[in-house]
Amino acid sequence: MVSAPGEEHYYLGIDGGGTKCKACIATADGRVLGTALAGPANPLHGFEQTLDSIECAARRALKDAQLPPETLQHLIAGVGLAGVNVPDLYRSISEWRHPFDHLYLATDLGIANMGAHHSEDGAVIVVGTGSSGYARVNGVERLLGGHGFPYGDQGSGAWMGLEAIKAVLLASDQLGPPTNLTEGVARLLGAKGIAIVEVMSGRPSSEYAKLAPLVFSAAEEGDDVAQKIVEEGASYISSMAYKLLDCQPGRLSLIGGLAARIEGWLAPGILKDLSIPLGPPEEGAILFARQRHLKANIA
Amino acid sequence: MVSAPGEEHYYLGIDGGGTKCKACIATADGRVLGTALAGPANPLHGFEQTLDSIECAARRALKDAQLPPETLQHLIAGVGLAGVNVPDLYRSISEWRHPFDHLYLATDLGIANMGAHHSEDGAVIVVGTGSSGYARVNGVERLLGGHGFPYGDQGSGAWMGLEAIKAVLLASDQLGPPTNLTEGVARLLGAKGIAIVEVMSGRPSSEYAKLAPLVFSAAEEGDDVAQKIVEEGASYISSMAYKLLDCQPGRLSLIGGLAARIEGWLAPGILKDLSIPLGPPEEGAILFARQRHLKANIA
Repeated sequence: MVSAPGEEHYYLGIDGGGTKCKACIATADGRVLGTALAGPANPLHGFEQTLDSIECAARRALKDAQLPPETLQHLIAGVGLAGVNVPDLYRSISEWRHPFDHLYLATDLGIANMGAHHSEDGAVIVVGTGSSGYARVNGVERLLGGHGFPYGDQGSGAWMGLEAIKAVLLASDQLGPPTNLTEGVARLLGAKGIAIVEVMSGRPSSEYAKLAPLVFSAAEEGDDVAQKIVEEGASYISSMAYKLLDCQPGRLSLIGGLAARIEGWLAPGILKDLSIPLGPPEEGAILFARQRHLKANIA
Repeated sequence: MVSAPGEEHYYLGIDGGGTKCKACIATADGRVLGTALAGPANPLHGFEQTLDSIECAARRALKDAQLPPETLQHLIAGVGLAGVNVPDLYRSISEWRHPFDHLYLATDLGIANMGAHHSEDGAVIVVGTGSSGYARVNGVERLLGGHGFPYGDQGSGAWMGLEAIKAVLLASDQLGPPTNLTEGVARLLGAKGIAIVEVMSGRPSSEYAKLAPLVFSAAEEGDDVAQKIVEEGASYISSMAYKLLDCQPGRLSLIGGLAARIEGWLAPGILKDLSIPLGPPEEGAILFARQRHLKANIA
């Protein structure tokens, strides 16, 4: 495909997540022109909303890049989404009649990995609303965790929020030890005991994840119950790190909204093996889109 | 209120739960004429379905009692529902334009307690799709647990199913010990690893509860992971029993679909303190309705 005169190709990188969708626009040679945020984009927890958030984030990023709205239909998009390792979801998103010129779909982990290492090879652990691990070594992928709320994603924000609520409810019945989380949760949710159930019933994982900073703070202040939660979560993330390092990925990065917060709780041996990410996931999405698009146009 | 000639009053007892709704029809003097089942009736997990299930169960019970359908509007209903200890839900159900002559609303625990002891005083632990405890002593009520899926109801069927899935997913990543539950879950759900997520995502607690018998079987056959799940659940139920016995309720009964299965796993001291329930919850709902209706017509 050759650009018509005056119709320049821009790249769109999308990093979808349970709490927000990040977008960035770059030129064909990788210069970032604009970035933007939109609402949640985890197709497992809201399919239509995910598509809306992607389009909304793209439009906002175009505006931020001072490009006209009609540029949308010329964008070569790289989209990384949680959950598209589930075959049915991959198919559904692929069938989306998207407003872009092209859309290349990858897992959120795949693009995070490319962003962190500026290479397809490497490993990442993402700790944000959810948690998951990914390694790619010589073309072989390994996925860990990322099974989702409420049955997986130990160590993630949503998991910590759920564990905090479980602990507060147990304490409210005096069937579990008292904890400072009771007061913190009451302040944040405006609810105690059974009223917590009213507030949280049916809420998405991103609402649970909002409690995670509270759990870290209580743990750092020495609350036993909060410490046990953070330690259990961190121990899972450490095990995941060891498993990924076994694949000899070259580089392993810890990323996501809770990465900085959980780092200090990991097994001491892990820290020295972590590499600072070279770029964010949305940059990885652009690299991915460029790579795929060049390959498609050579083939 | 005095019955018009030829217009006899019948009582309807409803025991709503996360998996099914039980109904029974009785005469004014308590003779049971018919019983029936309908779909789930937990208003926390489906408000409209709960109302539908109640009406459907009532119509079926009338049929079973060989009473004409139009008797529905003359029924004095006692309805016990999970979740109506949450004030907003109590209000919403109370505002229902129900098809009965009268509707008296109680918690599922209140009617279970009346059924088990043929008295307002006593205590019950319900272990089915969910788990909860209740004591009433000299007019003072004590509620334990029943906070719901996925943050509470330890020891319940839904909790066991969720713990089983967590364990199977951890094992699939080799981040948790291997377990026979993997095979059992695969057989029941037709899914392994990430495919389990596709099957279970967004499913109600009753679907998780369907895995509980599998967990008990694996535990009974010596599977370590399953044993830990059942032991943790049973330990919670034992703690609940001790707390309820502290209230000196006279009688304490263990009821619900998993009562017989979990009994043997409780702390050895508990069993001798358990009393066999005198009647099922739906019978308690009839006692409750009769009591309330007499009181309302005397007042």
